[in-house]
Amino acid sequence: MLKDTVWMDTEKDALCCIDQTKLPERVVFLTLYEAKEIYTAIKNLVIRGAPAIGVAAAIGLYSVCARFEDTTSEGFLYSLQKTAELLNSSRPTAVNLSWALKRMLLKAEQNKNESVEDIKSILKKEAISIYEEDIRVCYKIGENGLSVLKDGYKILTHCNAGSLAAVRYGTALAPIYVGKEKGYNFKVYADETRPLLQGARLTAFELCENGIDTTLLCDNMSASLMQKGEVDAVIVGCDRVAANGDAANKIGTLGVAIIAKMFSVPFYVCAPFSTIDFNCKSGKDIIIEQRAPSEVIDLHYTHRMTHPDAKVYNPAFDVTPADLITAFITEKGVFAPKELKGDL
Amino acid sequence: MLKDTVWMDTEKDALCCIDQTKLPERVVFLTLYEAKEIYTAIKNLVIRGAPAIGVAAAIGLYSVCARFEDTTSEGFLYSLQKTAELLNSSRPTAVNLSWALKRMLLKAEQNKNESVEDIKSILKKEAISIYEEDIRVCYKIGENGLSVLKDGYKILTHCNAGSLAAVRYGTALAPIYVGKEKGYNFKVYADETRPLLQGARLTAFELCENGIDTTLLCDNMSASLMQKGEVDAVIVGCDRVAANGDAANKIGTLGVAIIAKMFSVPFYVCAPFSTIDFNCKSGKDIIIEQRAPSEVIDLHYTHRMTHPDAKVYNPAFDVTPADLITAFITEKGVFAPKELKGDL
Repeated sequence: MLKDTVWMDTEKDALCCIDQTKLPERVVFLTLYEAKEIYTAIKNLVIRGAPAIGVAAAIGLYSVCARFEDTTSEGFLYSLQKTAELLNSSRPTAVNLSWALKRMLLKAEQNKNESVEDIKSILKKEAISIYEEDIRVCYKIGENGLSVLKDGYKILTHCNAGSLAAVRYGTALAPIYVGKEKGYNFKVYADETRPLLQGARLTAFELCENGIDTTLLCDNMSASLMQKGEVDAVIVGCDRVAANGDAANKIGTLGVAIIAKMFSVPFYVCAPFSTIDFNCKSGKDIIIEQRAPSEVIDLHYTHRMTHPDAKVYNPAFDVTPADLITAFITEKGVFAPKELKGDL
Repeated sequence: MLKDTVWMDTEKDALCCIDQTKLPERVVFLTLYEAKEIYTAIKNLVIRGAPAIGVAAAIGLYSVCARFEDTTSEGFLYSLQKTAELLNSSRPTAVNLSWALKRMLLKAEQNKNESVEDIKSILKKEAISIYEEDIRVCYKIGENGLSVLKDGYKILTHCNAGSLAAVRYGTALAPIYVGKEKGYNFKVYADETRPLLQGARLTAFELCENGIDTTLLCDNMSASLMQKGEVDAVIVGCDRVAANGDAANKIGTLGVAIIAKMFSVPFYVCAPFSTIDFNCKSGKDIIIEQRAPSEVIDLHYTHRMTHPDAKVYNPAFDVTPADLITAFITEKGVFAPKELKGDL
């Protein structure tokens, strides 16, 4: 049975999560209900992955407000607003974070004429809804993925778009987990994903924890693996899809897509439909963040491993053009890049 | 002025080298003349790279025998043979090592009727010849490389086939260094080359030491770089070329070649002509060594970074098919894969 990455302790009214900064060496679970500690947990990547952050913010906001001693709804809403502002400042760029907090604040606002206890109870339900929706959407992505992945497939993935990036099923790894529940056996190859090694630290970890046959490889080994005929399909997650089907994802995804094309291996992108940005015409309109050289140079922050004069190229993402993508696997179905439309 | 990786101190009759195990953190030069310390230096990768090992063995053997107190040539040749056996056992698989030692022993045998002092003097010349030949062959590879690389080119390389793998110019990096001597300005991108990071630790180091504009990147970033039009040519070294032009080189080379093809970037393999194995029909006949999981899992040997159940795929090399190779750059000229013949 798959464990949740974030969830609510409904008796203690608290946010529970796995501490991802301790992985893969130690599995530590945390129970949080103070605003400052939830803020710090998101800021310091104890909780990471856009969907997981959104759910954690909603549950976290509820857990904090459940302890408010305000007796008037005005006072309560003021305190709630201030807490939401604090939590929102933890990771200013994560869209899901502000989306989830806004949704909670709106719900409180819509019910401001109720008693404080009733508003608390409504917010508890809303946080649970946000949590359950994530599970439902990811499960559906998993089910839809199984329409293209056959039992026994050997599947390559890059970075972490798994359970640890969401509540339970993840996106790219959802078909693996849902498949396992339905009796499928998959063999998964996990790219280690330099520079921050999310594949080694998180993907290989969660797959192994859930009993999936997992093999870790360095990013530069996937061509050798596909040349040997060892990969039946590639599945990755995705940060943003443009209207024409170009997809931005973790650096290295483009290379895997090109190599997959060379060896005629299907290349699937798993994403909630909300990841498709129909206002963004093509991949050229997606700005790619350049990250700190230290991520590349100071391996695991212990050891400098190159000449001080060496410059560093360290983009966080790359853009895979639509013609390298076999299909998008979403909660609404499986679509070729050309089939993507806002009204699906 | 390019510094040598290995050379002879002709006054002290000693082998001099840079200690590669200390790079990139410290630049330490060693002067060696005892058999046991030379054996240990090769065994422990103080000196690495097949051409460098061959030259070091020849100079090392001379440096040891220059101190022999034998007065008869029989006694001298016996001691020489024993020393060569010891040195040869340091890295049993490196072909250049036994090749260089055999050449030294043959020279001594051919001159066994000379005095001990004369044999010593002949061996000194032979060791210097082996050293000079490496420089000459690599320089010629560099010159020939300049027939296809234009001033101002941005060049991507993978792993280390540079000065540190040979005496002075290296193979893949020879065109960069010879070009610099002739006034060319190149910008070099160095793949870090997981798992052992030869690109970060050695290639970026030696390029920076020699004043070349160098940018380090993770292996999975080269596709992004080529997509941006930032690479004019890829140059790599090579461990073995089959008769049909398939080339085995450090793991990751195949992926770079596929990505280069996708973006119409020329892909060059630099190698001494002796690297072409005309007895090996195609890349399928080249056996690929699978190396220890710890190289991938235990980053820089300090930190375990994945789940204990995760398996590891860790091949040392991959094979790039001839149709992805634009040309081979050798000391005899630049040849398309189909032009390779034993009698060139």
